[in-house]
Amino acid sequence: MASEFKLIRRVQFAETDMAGILHFAEFFRYMEETEHAFFRSLGLSVQMQVEGRTIGWPRVRAECDYKSRLRFEDEVEVCLRVAEKRAKSLTYDFVFRKLGEAPPVEVARGRVTTVCVAMDETSGQMKAVAIPAEISRHIEVSDAARLE
Amino acid sequence: MASEFKLIRRVQFAETDMAGILHFAEFFRYMEETEHAFFRSLGLSVQMQVEGRTIGWPRVRAECDYKSRLRFEDEVEVCLRVAEKRAKSLTYDFVFRKLGEAPPVEVARGRVTTVCVAMDETSGQMKAVAIPAEISRHIEVSDAARLE
Amino acid sequence: MASEFKLIRRVQFAETDMAGILHFAEFFRYMEETEHAFFRSLGLSVQMQVEGRTIGWPRVRAECDYKSRLRFEDEVEVCLRVAEKRAKSLTYDFVFRKLGEAPPVEVARGRVTTVCVAMDETSGQMKAVAIPAEISRHIEVSDAARLE
Amino acid sequence: MASEFKLIRRVQFAETDMAGILHFAEFFRYMEETEHAFFRSLGLSVQMQVEGRTIGWPRVRAECDYKSRLRFEDEVEVCLRVAEKRAKSLTYDFVFRKLGEAPPVEVARGRVTTVCVAMDETSGQMKAVAIPAEISRHIEVSDAARLE
Repeated sequence: MASEFKLIRRVQFAETDMAGILHFAEFFRYMEETEHAFFRSLGLSVQMQVEGRTIGWPRVRAECDYKSRLRFEDEVEVCLRVAEKRAKSLTYDFVFRKLGEAPPVEVARGRVTTVCVAMDETSGQMKAVAIPAEISRHIEVSDAARLE
Repeated sequence: MASEFKLIRRVQFAETDMAGILHFAEFFRYMEETEHAFFRSLGLSVQMQVEGRTIGWPRVRAECDYKSRLRFEDEVEVCLRVAEKRAKSLTYDFVFRKLGEAPPVEVARGRVTTVCVAMDETSGQMKAVAIPAEISRHIEVSDAARLE
Repeated sequence: MASEFKLIRRVQFAETDMAGILHFAEFFRYMEETEHAFFRSLGLSVQMQVEGRTIGWPRVRAECDYKSRLRFEDEVEVCLRVAEKRAKSLTYDFVFRKLGEAPPVEVARGRVTTVCVAMDETSGQMKAVAIPAEISRHIEVSDAARLE
Repeated sequence: MASEFKLIRRVQFAETDMAGILHFAEFFRYMEETEHAFFRSLGLSVQMQVEGRTIGWPRVRAECDYKSRLRFEDEVEVCLRVAEKRAKSLTYDFVFRKLGEAPPVEVARGRVTTVCVAMDETSGQMKAVAIPAEISRHIEVSDAARLE
């Protein structure tokens, strides 16, 4: 059972904008990359076959508070914490910290709620389903009240 | 003085992901495109020179609630409403509606708070400043309590 | 039968990089958007069902020569010309011209070769196939030796 | 003096498209990430101050041949080789190989030519300049006739 995960990532050139900083929408891609690496660390994938069904995780809510900026080649640590676990959904909290300084500087905090769906291959439709035991048994809510 | 704006946009192939839908982070780019088109409609730009300073608008908060999906080639209407106007910041509400059906289907709602900064060209640093009158006099809070 | 198409597009903020210009990889997305709009103008889609098969168009080659730069809010005209049509593939030439000046400035030239495939929904595999008549009869090679 | 470099990269969800594969334009971003990591490995940066000038590397040509597909979570090795070094420009060759199978499968080959410029901070204009010795002395053309 895991409830926390940490990814270290370097800001790429194409992710910056003309203001010279990491574009604000990219933070959501960083959160997703961290979530997916968390799944891989558990031997899972966010798009996997479970009992003949393709399970996926579309988002129902995403948010981010920006406190500082990230620039090209900055190294950032993205910490994930499982904040909530329901029958059909998971909510993750994220903290972004810029490395290379002591102590690391908190640059952003985010939260994503994602719902477990089974995808109908033929129609492409998605239907919310209970998180399969094969996935659920690996993930638990963090004891920590908040990511520090 | 303007407080609302509407952009119509078609979902592009490269914006979809392997689940066949518009990637959730792209909604934040659509909100930004709408905000920037709103500025252009007022004869402004989000990155402009005002009294010898380069004015920019980094984000302090962004959020989105997803209710349905958008797919390749769907046409979506993004409605912007000025929800809050402070000395140094603006908050916009957004509604996404999928066109091509009657009535259009609401697929998402978002909100972005952005702060007015002057950028120091030499250091690349940003400093929050009062919204210049040249910009401020064009923008007002919407009377509507909420985007319908 | 059509052999040419033109798209006008504005450079978006998120597409710029810290050098203040449209990122070079974005030119390939602009070419693709033009190709897809060309298909739509013919009542087609690049991902469509033909006789029970899903037809798609993965790329086998893409190239671009950059002559000048595009910046935020520049308007660019992307001209597509069908340069080659084979049994299973199409090659397009593209010219990018920056508008807003007279005459427009040529900023780039590109070329993309794309192969017609049928996708196996179950395996996700792609197999090159002859371009279906339903698509082929709408598209012909341009008489012009070169895009001017 | 270095003439080759290797980056290992995992395909991210947001980089796939509805065809379930890495979008073709992303290969150019992967090439750039490899080039930038190559510079970092030499203690350099692609955007750095040299003798009071900001040096940058806009592209003059980019191309890619696609032979196979990459999918979500595939690990890919991107090999860079300095193919040509001129007074004001560098040309890199790239090979993409999908890992996880023995032997690795070659999925694409690319080439990028990039020109050394000094950027005028005030005007934002770029001017081609001789590659500064501080950079040039670290980089040499590969002996290998071709990337294997």
